Amino acid sequence: MKKILLFCCKGFEVMEFSPFIDVMGWARSDFGEKIFVETCGYTKMVTSTFGVTVEMDRTLDKVDIQDYDALAIPGGFEEYGFYEEAYDTPFQDLIKAFHAAGKPIASICVAALPVAKTGLLDGRNATTYHLNNGIRQKQLAQLGAVVVNEPVVEDNNIITSYCPETAAKVAFRLLGKLCGEELRDKVMYKMGY
Amino acid sequence: MKKILLFCCKGFEVMEFSPFIDVMGWARSDFGEKIFVETCGYTKMVTSTFGVTVEMDRTLDKVDIQDYDALAIPGGFEEYGFYEEAYDTPFQDLIKAFHAAGKPIASICVAALPVAKTGLLDGRNATTYHLNNGIRQKQLAQLGAVVVNEPVVEDNNIITSYCPETAAKVAFRLLGKLCGEELRDKVMYKMGY
Repeated sequence: MKKILLFCCKGFEVMEFSPFIDVMGWARSDFGEKIFVETCGYTKMVTSTFGVTVEMDRTLDKVDIQDYDALAIPGGFEEYGFYEEAYDTPFQDLIKAFHAAGKPIASICVAALPVAKTGLLDGRNATTYHLNNGIRQKQLAQLGAVVVNEPVVEDNNIITSYCPETAAKVAFRLLGKLCGEELRDKVMYKMGY
Repeated sequence: MKKILLFCCKGFEVMEFSPFIDVMGWARSDFGEKIFVETCGYTKMVTSTFGVTVEMDRTLDKVDIQDYDALAIPGGFEEYGFYEEAYDTPFQDLIKAFHAAGKPIASICVAALPVAKTGLLDGRNATTYHLNNGIRQKQLAQLGAVVVNEPVVEDNNIITSYCPETAAKVAFRLLGKLCGEELRDKVMYKMGY
């Protein structure tokens, strides 16, 4: 049995959240794989960038990382408060604890920034949102990462990526890491990829 | 100003819901386009296939279709109750009312089936989920549509599509129909497509 903690900061993007839910869900429903996702936030109800409110399975204070095999983090817009929670100490501590326990961390778009802020990407290859004159990539470099201009980058058990378009790719990558590439390929096919 | 009604039947898939939210959101945030999305269900809280509960902006009984320019419908899994609401009369009536008013309908995956059940796809080109021995495509044909084996099909102001992989394509198609292809292409670029 594998379980992913899907952490939603205020202002997360639903397109960067939903592939983790559905990719692992199709793996369960169509192939009987025992892989589960639990959603988590600072609060029970979390409102996304663009105003969709989602009920979380649990709040951060109720998380025991021993129950999980990986951490997944969607990005979000600064204007909708993403960094207020993404850079806050309890979430920073959660990221560090997953990494210290040897568990993969999968981030999409600007979710690479809170990972880098913990120091875990110091001198490591990583990427983040690539447009708007590379402002987010510059911030990632200032936080110590070696910025690689590729859509999905993995180093030191940490996956980072560009943008909404990469969200499904990251979810499939995480499925492959946890359950093998053969299953990943079967799920991709069933979902039309 | 343009407004889309995003209708979520019980058991909708979040990957087929989220692109409508984020594609129109990026069009607003990055380009100042006045295009809005309102979520709607039979109930205020709707639980997706694979168990994500989302708070809707309004319930079906509070909808005046004059307030909207298009209807968007994510698909969902039968095992999670999708057809219980998708085939129910009030939602069938909503679909017919949007079409009668000349407003586009954008459906993803098996959401083509409730559209076809209204009779609106009689003799019209359409598609739906293409794998599992074509069981959903056969149902679509039984409901009167001419099944076309392409990922995204448009006929008679109704968009239908294959699967989760086509979700973003359908959202971009709808943006292009409502706000023009030039803006659509700019938004696609900004989101990494």
